[in-house]
Amino acid sequence: MSKNLTKRSEDYSKWYNELVAKADLAENSGVRGCMVIKPYGYAIWEKMQAALDTMFKETGHENAYFPLFIPKSYFSKEASHVDGFAKECAVVTHYRLKNAEDGSGVVVDPEAKLEEELIVRPTSETIIWDTYRKWIQSYRDLPLLINQWANVVRWEMRTRLFLRTAEFLWQEGHTAHATENEAIAEAKQMMEVYATFAEQHMAVPVIKGLKTESERFAGALETYCIEAMMQDGKALQAGTSHFLGQNFAKAFDVTYASKEGKQQHVWATSWGVSTRLMGALIMTHSDDNGLVLPPKLAPIQVVIVPIYKGIEQLDAIAEKVAPLVKELRAAGISVKFDQRDTHKPGFKFNEYELKGVPVRLAIGQRDLENDTYEVARRDTLTKETVAAAGVVDHIKQLLEAIQENLYTKALSYRDTHITEVDSYEAFKEVLEQKGGFVSAHWDGTIETEAKIKEETKASIRCIPIDAKETVGSCVYSGKPSTKRVLFAKAY
Amino acid sequence: MSKNLTKRSEDYSKWYNELVAKADLAENSGVRGCMVIKPYGYAIWEKMQAALDTMFKETGHENAYFPLFIPKSYFSKEASHVDGFAKECAVVTHYRLKNAEDGSGVVVDPEAKLEEELIVRPTSETIIWDTYRKWIQSYRDLPLLINQWANVVRWEMRTRLFLRTAEFLWQEGHTAHATENEAIAEAKQMMEVYATFAEQHMAVPVIKGLKTESERFAGALETYCIEAMMQDGKALQAGTSHFLGQNFAKAFDVTYASKEGKQQHVWATSWGVSTRLMGALIMTHSDDNGLVLPPKLAPIQVVIVPIYKGIEQLDAIAEKVAPLVKELRAAGISVKFDQRDTHKPGFKFNEYELKGVPVRLAIGQRDLENDTYEVARRDTLTKETVAAAGVVDHIKQLLEAIQENLYTKALSYRDTHITEVDSYEAFKEVLEQKGGFVSAHWDGTIETEAKIKEETKASIRCIPIDAKETVGSCVYSGKPSTKRVLFAKAY
Repeated sequence: MSKNLTKRSEDYSKWYNELVAKADLAENSGVRGCMVIKPYGYAIWEKMQAALDTMFKETGHENAYFPLFIPKSYFSKEASHVDGFAKECAVVTHYRLKNAEDGSGVVVDPEAKLEEELIVRPTSETIIWDTYRKWIQSYRDLPLLINQWANVVRWEMRTRLFLRTAEFLWQEGHTAHATENEAIAEAKQMMEVYATFAEQHMAVPVIKGLKTESERFAGALETYCIEAMMQDGKALQAGTSHFLGQNFAKAFDVTYASKEGKQQHVWATSWGVSTRLMGALIMTHSDDNGLVLPPKLAPIQVVIVPIYKGIEQLDAIAEKVAPLVKELRAAGISVKFDQRDTHKPGFKFNEYELKGVPVRLAIGQRDLENDTYEVARRDTLTKETVAAAGVVDHIKQLLEAIQENLYTKALSYRDTHITEVDSYEAFKEVLEQKGGFVSAHWDGTIETEAKIKEETKASIRCIPIDAKETVGSCVYSGKPSTKRVLFAKAY
Repeated sequence: MSKNLTKRSEDYSKWYNELVAKADLAENSGVRGCMVIKPYGYAIWEKMQAALDTMFKETGHENAYFPLFIPKSYFSKEASHVDGFAKECAVVTHYRLKNAEDGSGVVVDPEAKLEEELIVRPTSETIIWDTYRKWIQSYRDLPLLINQWANVVRWEMRTRLFLRTAEFLWQEGHTAHATENEAIAEAKQMMEVYATFAEQHMAVPVIKGLKTESERFAGALETYCIEAMMQDGKALQAGTSHFLGQNFAKAFDVTYASKEGKQQHVWATSWGVSTRLMGALIMTHSDDNGLVLPPKLAPIQVVIVPIYKGIEQLDAIAEKVAPLVKELRAAGISVKFDQRDTHKPGFKFNEYELKGVPVRLAIGQRDLENDTYEVARRDTLTKETVAAAGVVDHIKQLLEAIQENLYTKALSYRDTHITEVDSYEAFKEVLEQKGGFVSAHWDGTIETEAKIKEETKASIRCIPIDAKETVGSCVYSGKPSTKRVLFAKAY
């Protein structure tokens, strides 16, 4: 298999698009903006889902399912929310087709017009809070900690596989609390859960922070986020967790009786990550040879490729490999022995490199004689010969080492690409020359933020949670500032 | 908690609706025909999904994801399919809302009309086969064995929670094969997988069979099905697996080059089960006290209720129970220790009975003194006192015994409600008086089938796979027949 992958240094964007296609992750469909997630890409998403779902359940959340459609009027109940979401959306207006009178096919039946249009959910706050009104009466019903795995639709004009698609898959948590502090703690907790998942499973380092007012979720009082840096220095928002205050409780009249019998509006959060994480995963680790996957999310962790002439050699290799495959599986390691006779070893090596399989074993006649395997790791592209006797332990350690190395490498890249600047000249220069995140003082106004974005295309990615209080002046306006925020061009 | 559940003998339909609501399984939403699946109901569905997904993967299938929307023209490509599905469906005609000029809220933006309407998928054959055209070139690409977990929408006029809803959750398998025989074998295999799942996990006995022409899936050459009998004697189609011939391959021009280099159309199957299985599960086992769940699908398999006066007794019980909970969890048994102080034991007993928890342990002061537990089983409502030392083994055996007993009980009910008849008089009498399935000779014509359905409301549920060849004459027309088929009123 020849890869013919554009180099990242030549055209990063083209490299990404080609990689997504060639590694069999996803493709565009016949429906504008909607993607097909192919089996190999979906297998990675399933691993993400499984890890996240476990973390959500460990923090006390339960899954449920709410309708795909939301009546148009629900959106109008929360003022900022309707502006943020109800505008670019898929609208269901009819519920029937009929045969065209001229025999040309099927057409919309004008008799079957809905009284009220239905919006295909772009996010589910409104339908869920309409439901919570029935579920919440007393403080005993709180906290209500619910998550939903679902598809959502936002009518994006410019789409890109995984990064921005009209339909995407995600999870959305929606929780209700008796007090403001509890809801804030929940929103923060879920940001932490996302950060842990990104760093420990995806091997993607993230910066935890707060969004500025203009970047906040429509309807939120505060948006917590995790921001990752891609290999081209651009930022990718990898997950958000919103403190919604009492906005939705008031819009949908959700109150509870406190222990003292007083009726009060409840406090809310919502939080989500999506198939966008696939884009972050791909762009953080992969190289000019193809995908590089962290072992914890790799559908195939180890592939074994036989190198043989004739069926007898293949049989001898297969016999040797069988107990190894068994032992690896027993250790919870996913392994594939690729004995396809239709493809040569070189083709297979290329294919698994392209698909980012972390560890490749090769075994030929000489290995049989010497009782060894050739072990190659995808992240460093290095090879070594390992005695068969110790190969299982070797692989276990190698998988851990690869997971660790990917994180460390990404962290080092990220940290060397965060640059503190103290003038607007330096700001623009760093952004254009070096790229990455620019750490700068900002006067806290929407106006300055908007002007900088207009002039440089860099937005404020976040106000880091752990930002130190330092006296300084805004790089744009010169007005006083107490902490640095992170600017970057973003996906 | 007082149950106030209508008795099955009084009004089976009302009993079902009340049970679904009171056991916190699902409820109607503000969107006509769309349900909210509540956390407890969704937890059961998740267990079904996990078991089925494992079985699909064991039989070589991979998951993928295809678009929610299908362009209208795709439906017209397969003639019978468009009649079966494209008529009652949700149609997306616009992609934007805007503020109404009179300030009354948001309205559909007439400028944002789609050139071609999009149908919210009622089933995905058309969009998937449009994709398969790109994926299949050579015999090396076959078989293609793919499954999708998704939501689908069919605009049903009369809806009922789980049994018939506008939006429902399901899985749909779509496979492509080089030969007719291989595709037929796949369709049969998936019917067997569904039967195994229904019987071994849901404890629901099913009859495997073929649908008659008029009950077949729109676009299929043959539909294999599993049919279950509910406690009111009505049939419920629990899963279907379709041999689609080359219909979709021809409609979407999907061909492959054989080993000999000849271009041929591929052969197809599709197969699905849905949240309708929740209805089957509820109606097969539950009783006038509430839900009865087979242990393999119960979100909580064992609940422990402390019976105490004052905090000291509760503490003593909690201390006693802690290692038991740990030991049960280590054995893979899901257990809940309900030490809520806000509810009395009697309330809790009722609640867990209503929710169908298979095994309930109670422990009070006397049990503490005697080192025992009171163990109650939900299926038989019997109780016994068990020594603490042997309680884990006792529970393990009990869970297996309950799983087995539910199946045996349902099987016995089903088998005593299949009645062979040889005249139309007897046919009608059995249907009206005894109910259940009627096994009768049928002349094989659509006309007879339609007349019987019109006159009795009974449809042919299936031609059982294992139906013996017997000489007979059709109960309706008197014409010759070689095997009996099963008639019943159905959900």
